[in-house]
Amino acid sequence: MTMTIDSNAPTLQEDAKPTVNQERITNDMLALARIGFNEEDRGVYRPAFSDADMEARRWLMAAMRTIGVEARMDGAGNVIGRIGPADQPAVMVGSHTDSQLCGGIFDGTLGVIAGLECLRVIREHNIPIALPIELVSFADEEGRFGGMFGSQAMSGQITLDWIENAQDPDGVTLRDAMKGQGLDPADAMSAYREPATLSSFLELHIEQGPVLEQAGKSIGVVRAITGVFVWVIHLKGKADHSGTAPMNMRSDAFMGLADFAHEIPRIIDEEGTEMSRLTVGWADLKPGAPHTVPGEAVFTLVGRDQTVDAMESLANTCRRVLSAIARRHRLMFEYEEMSWLEPEACHPEIIGLCKRNAEELGLEYEEMVSGAGHDVQFMAKITRAGLLFVPSQGGVSHAPDEWTHWTDVEKGANVLLRTLLHLAGTSSSTKANRGKKRARVRPA
Amino acid sequence: MTMTIDSNAPTLQEDAKPTVNQERITNDMLALARIGFNEEDRGVYRPAFSDADMEARRWLMAAMRTIGVEARMDGAGNVIGRIGPADQPAVMVGSHTDSQLCGGIFDGTLGVIAGLECLRVIREHNIPIALPIELVSFADEEGRFGGMFGSQAMSGQITLDWIENAQDPDGVTLRDAMKGQGLDPADAMSAYREPATLSSFLELHIEQGPVLEQAGKSIGVVRAITGVFVWVIHLKGKADHSGTAPMNMRSDAFMGLADFAHEIPRIIDEEGTEMSRLTVGWADLKPGAPHTVPGEAVFTLVGRDQTVDAMESLANTCRRVLSAIARRHRLMFEYEEMSWLEPEACHPEIIGLCKRNAEELGLEYEEMVSGAGHDVQFMAKITRAGLLFVPSQGGVSHAPDEWTHWTDVEKGANVLLRTLLHLAGTSSSTKANRGKKRARVRPA
Repeated sequence: MTMTIDSNAPTLQEDAKPTVNQERITNDMLALARIGFNEEDRGVYRPAFSDADMEARRWLMAAMRTIGVEARMDGAGNVIGRIGPADQPAVMVGSHTDSQLCGGIFDGTLGVIAGLECLRVIREHNIPIALPIELVSFADEEGRFGGMFGSQAMSGQITLDWIENAQDPDGVTLRDAMKGQGLDPADAMSAYREPATLSSFLELHIEQGPVLEQAGKSIGVVRAITGVFVWVIHLKGKADHSGTAPMNMRSDAFMGLADFAHEIPRIIDEEGTEMSRLTVGWADLKPGAPHTVPGEAVFTLVGRDQTVDAMESLANTCRRVLSAIARRHRLMFEYEEMSWLEPEACHPEIIGLCKRNAEELGLEYEEMVSGAGHDVQFMAKITRAGLLFVPSQGGVSHAPDEWTHWTDVEKGANVLLRTLLHLAGTSSSTKANRGKKRARVRPA
Repeated sequence: MTMTIDSNAPTLQEDAKPTVNQERITNDMLALARIGFNEEDRGVYRPAFSDADMEARRWLMAAMRTIGVEARMDGAGNVIGRIGPADQPAVMVGSHTDSQLCGGIFDGTLGVIAGLECLRVIREHNIPIALPIELVSFADEEGRFGGMFGSQAMSGQITLDWIENAQDPDGVTLRDAMKGQGLDPADAMSAYREPATLSSFLELHIEQGPVLEQAGKSIGVVRAITGVFVWVIHLKGKADHSGTAPMNMRSDAFMGLADFAHEIPRIIDEEGTEMSRLTVGWADLKPGAPHTVPGEAVFTLVGRDQTVDAMESLANTCRRVLSAIARRHRLMFEYEEMSWLEPEACHPEIIGLCKRNAEELGLEYEEMVSGAGHDVQFMAKITRAGLLFVPSQGGVSHAPDEWTHWTDVEKGANVLLRTLLHLAGTSSSTKANRGKKRARVRPA
């Protein structure tokens, strides 16, 4: 039976619409979870270009081959498989399969496996698509080498110089890590995709925060990814004996850090927005002995907000507060800006499509801003891009107890599938396939 | 020529009084500085029971032998040499030759070398002494194994159980460290000295703080050693993504630590004394990643004051403030009291003697409280004890640029020598040699 859809009708008939097979998604998620899994701490260890990372990439290529999709690895290590016409710009879907050290099984992986299931459903139901769909697993989204290597390479946000010098916190260079896997680092430049070869990019990811869970909603439609700056701050005073140095004669670097951190809520109240985030996540006191007044405090400050103005306001205020506190404690204050990534908006058409598809599936959604960085923020520089969230239990991520209920995974994957089909042109209810031939749906 | 001194006269004739030879002190100091010296960071490395520590002890025994004093090592590793009559309680002088890692050349060593010079002067001038004088270099004053092993053993403040379990921060046990040097740990119990075998104890040490330098005085006469408590505090919250966790949904353990540290000046102003010291010298944030809200902060708090009441007031207030802050940040608060050492007073007679001798030498002195712990605080439990300070340049200690000007060293050593001679009974101007035979000074 062939059913031709009126392209002017606002939606397809519900019973005619294909849906994902959650059992297959669960099985695939669990299969990938075993790669790089540590029995002891129950964490996943798939840092970029490790053996486990490469095994997961080969697993994905094999899984695509099973459904008749020949996948390749580009020069940056991104795995890409493609279906549909050869001569059209592609709708790209995916995320990443590398992980943090001792990470969870959902971060990144979910977006790749849900994308794989979309391809499988489209193949299975022989759904005609006007535009090709590409499934991607980006390399090093987790930033082992200090960026989001795969999506930065694909979007042209990378230089040979950077490739030459990038190294992980243990001093392993990107060059050596790639060469160890038989890859040539210089090839990463060839991973660049001309914007004309892409029609759009869509990513499904776990929220990694508590907002959806607390709102009791299964779907997050992301409006924008916050910008982020990372500073490494040095406060230098004088190491003194904790017993012999009177309180008023000290230049205690840690007290400078403590006074600054204490001001963070005030800085945000006075100068920030409701999306402002300021975090001191790492600190090192030197010499770091119980009986010694810290002569030096080195710490990181990560600031985030949803507009450049708001980021600048936060950064300027932090600088002023740190200077004042350093003077008060007789400290030297220095900082290095390790990175400054501007906020990136998702494309309004894709936001609209995601919202409509969630509504059509009867799912409550939250339009929200992503506090975490994702590959989508680089892909947004070369194509129309969108990002969907599903809830993270307890907001936990980057940890073994990262979890998203399978029922939420299924809902997210179905919104992904519908939106993907709209973007690839199986329904004219979106303008993604402007002027392209009418879509057909042929239920199996 | 023999000059008999009238024991009722308040002081000896100035020209008749022996003084130290500063050149010999400097040479000895520099000789010991070479043992365990690191050319790269110019720090001294003589942790207790290391090869360098043992080499310094053997150096000291050889140096005593050179002036005809047969030295021994007791069961705790304390080096002890003795001159004078065999049947009397001894006046003990000394300090320690072990060092911090990357320490300076004066801490401890000065008191031992100045004591050695006193013995040399007494021998050289054939100064008669009514009481024997013992020179000591205590073992592990710097607390590699968590206490002041040598003086605690000598004063009976140690148990077999403690010896069995003591280990350094790297997990090396005291047992293994001692056995590695051919010593039997159980022998440490035999280092105990019956109070009846001692008449007094006197120590010269660098101040390790800025007070004398800022006061422009060369001599510190210590009234008491402050008490000290050491806590290890755990604040436990929830590790979250720095971008996805809204500020008001966090349980940020570091922010709890920062808020507590910020309150320290207020705690001291409201509940402390001018001798109160509260120091956070070490902190560890977990997981300790720039983009992760710290789920746990572990840190040390070292509190000091000069009375038990003041210490208890500080401790109680810190506990209340930490509890309140933990509630405010939704954190769990736990602490472990690693040690609680009560303040120890020096003996009024010895304080008086030191002040008088400084005055007689025309030296300005500061009567002060020692914020740092010293062997004298354990010796004070079994005999009359006193402590002299000389200035530390910039207040620096436990670091390669620890320095005390040789002119100050000489002044301190001369006050030490005079006080020692008073205590050992070469002059009746002190009651230290109550009823003992009149002292004589025979200039060479």
